Amino acid sequence: MFNFIENGSITSVKGILSAGIHAGLKRKRKDLALILSEQPCNAAGTFTLNKVKAAPIIISKKMIDNKESVKAILINSGNANACTGEKGFEDALETQKYCADKLGLKQSEVLISSTGVIGEYLPVDIVKKGVKKIIENLTEDGGLAAAEAIMTTDLKIKSFALKIKLSKGEITLGGICKGSGMIMPNMATMLAFIATDADIDQPILQQLLSQTVNNSFNKISVDGETSTNDMVILLSNGISKIKIEEHSEDIKIFQEALLSITQKMAKSIVADGEGATKLITVEVKNAKTERDADTIAKTIANSPLVKTAINGSDANWGRILSAAGSSGVEFAPEKVEIKFDDMSILKKNYNTKFCEIEAKQILSKDELTISIELNEGEHNTTWWTCDFSEKYVQINSSYRS
Amino acid sequence: MFNFIENGSITSVKGILSAGIHAGLKRKRKDLALILSEQPCNAAGTFTLNKVKAAPIIISKKMIDNKESVKAILINSGNANACTGEKGFEDALETQKYCADKLGLKQSEVLISSTGVIGEYLPVDIVKKGVKKIIENLTEDGGLAAAEAIMTTDLKIKSFALKIKLSKGEITLGGICKGSGMIMPNMATMLAFIATDADIDQPILQQLLSQTVNNSFNKISVDGETSTNDMVILLSNGISKIKIEEHSEDIKIFQEALLSITQKMAKSIVADGEGATKLITVEVKNAKTERDADTIAKTIANSPLVKTAINGSDANWGRILSAAGSSGVEFAPEKVEIKFDDMSILKKNYNTKFCEIEAKQILSKDELTISIELNEGEHNTTWWTCDFSEKYVQINSSYRS
Repeated sequence: MFNFIENGSITSVKGILSAGIHAGLKRKRKDLALILSEQPCNAAGTFTLNKVKAAPIIISKKMIDNKESVKAILINSGNANACTGEKGFEDALETQKYCADKLGLKQSEVLISSTGVIGEYLPVDIVKKGVKKIIENLTEDGGLAAAEAIMTTDLKIKSFALKIKLSKGEITLGGICKGSGMIMPNMATMLAFIATDADIDQPILQQLLSQTVNNSFNKISVDGETSTNDMVILLSNGISKIKIEEHSEDIKIFQEALLSITQKMAKSIVADGEGATKLITVEVKNAKTERDADTIAKTIANSPLVKTAINGSDANWGRILSAAGSSGVEFAPEKVEIKFDDMSILKKNYNTKFCEIEAKQILSKDELTISIELNEGEHNTTWWTCDFSEKYVQINSSYRS
Repeated sequence: MFNFIENGSITSVKGILSAGIHAGLKRKRKDLALILSEQPCNAAGTFTLNKVKAAPIIISKKMIDNKESVKAILINSGNANACTGEKGFEDALETQKYCADKLGLKQSEVLISSTGVIGEYLPVDIVKKGVKKIIENLTEDGGLAAAEAIMTTDLKIKSFALKIKLSKGEITLGGICKGSGMIMPNMATMLAFIATDADIDQPILQQLLSQTVNNSFNKISVDGETSTNDMVILLSNGISKIKIEEHSEDIKIFQEALLSITQKMAKSIVADGEGATKLITVEVKNAKTERDADTIAKTIANSPLVKTAINGSDANWGRILSAAGSSGVEFAPEKVEIKFDDMSILKKNYNTKFCEIEAKQILSKDELTISIELNEGEHNTTWWTCDFSEKYVQINSSYRS
């Protein structure tokens, strides 16, 4: 029912233009992105739960809460405009207004987003000059340039799109995102901007996004840190003239596709986490409650001892079980079974005969799955994390975020 | 009222003998410690909250719960006897019984404790041979040898003692501990064994210990991990014939001294944390509640981004504020003030003029204090943590714990 498009991006979606340029917030690399829809969009969003919220988060969240119709998103990297007080707030509004004016839009039609260093004022003049220039660069294939411009310590461009067959025709869903460090449940220092040419009413769009984010971006962790600037935006511009109604078969397909693209994005963020060498899928099976499953998975995904062991390809199941035990969840440790991919590492009653060499082979792969069978109930979850390398420390003891 | 004794240890306490030897659980280093009191002791203890509890934890905790009178503690490093099921439990009982027999004691008079690799069976024969040998080595100045024998990845021996002047004379309080990795609130992979020659009834001893642990060992974090094997034991053998009564002036002095020695031990654990280069004191001031203060302090103390920034001597107050904001506590970020030692880094309303060079000088020290003034209420707390270095990852991607 849906297929990924090779080299797809947010501009794979009909009526979406985009660009990414170097404005001057960073020394050399691209640092300003603009996404423009030819038609007004319904817009949904989810935002960081950090109590310390950056100015653009406060402004964009209010627009989403007010169900504003949106036509553009202006995003800068290199400066988070966080912890910048009243002045930071005014700076954000000023660049938003400037961008809207230059595009001939209302201020309330331009969402804004920032990522980068905390606690420094946004260089408004640089952003304004950049806005003037970026508008001239908007193209129908500018998605990858925009994806590049929102990167901070990311090493890889993160850009995806899907074609979805619905009952009345084909629609497209495309997006870009960034991650790298400060990545943890409940919105990480991650930004994701997704658009579709399907026509979806705002309340439904918001519901679809919130549910999906809970099962994708909220189930990843690089370092257990929650940023001041996280946001995920989903735009629907309706250009395909294909309306997706509540309780329809089409909405089920769309939701599946949305989950698929957001999970792909979430996994790409973890795989490219600061210093990461491996993408680790953590499955927790048969917990008493969904919350239990998520709490255990989250604790394992955040455990420095588990993540360093996997970095060293060490089949240290004891650290996995110990992390589960420290999560606060009630369970019987002797009933736990652990697998690396399909290989049984721990059986019930601490039965642990396995081949260390074979286990090391699995742990040496770029991608692997750790599954923890609790034998307590019927609730499962899947999280994604990465290993913890010396490189993570190197990056974060020198880079000021 | 009390003074630290130079090179003091648990054997500084009258009637306490101790020894530490190489039994063969580790390749070369000491791995077996024994503490023996000439007289029966009242014993108090606190134990890991990890749901996965090692066999010696279950056995020793039950003895403390039963208020058994205790004369010895047998501790091995090199093997945690955790996640070893029924057999691990029997192995623990067997070594306990053997040690009791050789000392001419009841089995219920010997506490046992283990630290080291998880998930491997305890080599009972090696421990038994070691027990035979260690009993011959017990001396009145064996505290330091015992402190050395309980080390795992610790680099420094941790041993302290205090002389305390009470109304009826002088008593001694001495102890040894180990830490290094898997260190976090609510009992870390840390062991601490403390003794006094004062005479204190068991329920009072337990109360004193529990309160004190909450303000010392439970306020440190190296890596946010809680081990399967943590325990703190406090023995009172009464040999000084000085009885400490409830509600007396003496008990206040004793409690202060106990807090002083346990905080010293806790800080020595953090300062010697895996890969640590700096001891960081985190003070949170004027929170709405004590719980708020502790939650924020704990989140900062566990934040990889704060800890890597300090490793790099980077005055990254934004990460500190962001960590506080992600703790879940309600507070107004614009009211927050941050200091490094006495130097103001952030004033209210995100006012941040400071000299980067001076800040770097403070952050380059071996010991420094970060204080966070919330201006929300009247509750304060102090936590201790260390920086996060590449060495931590090195150690934990190769060492199997």
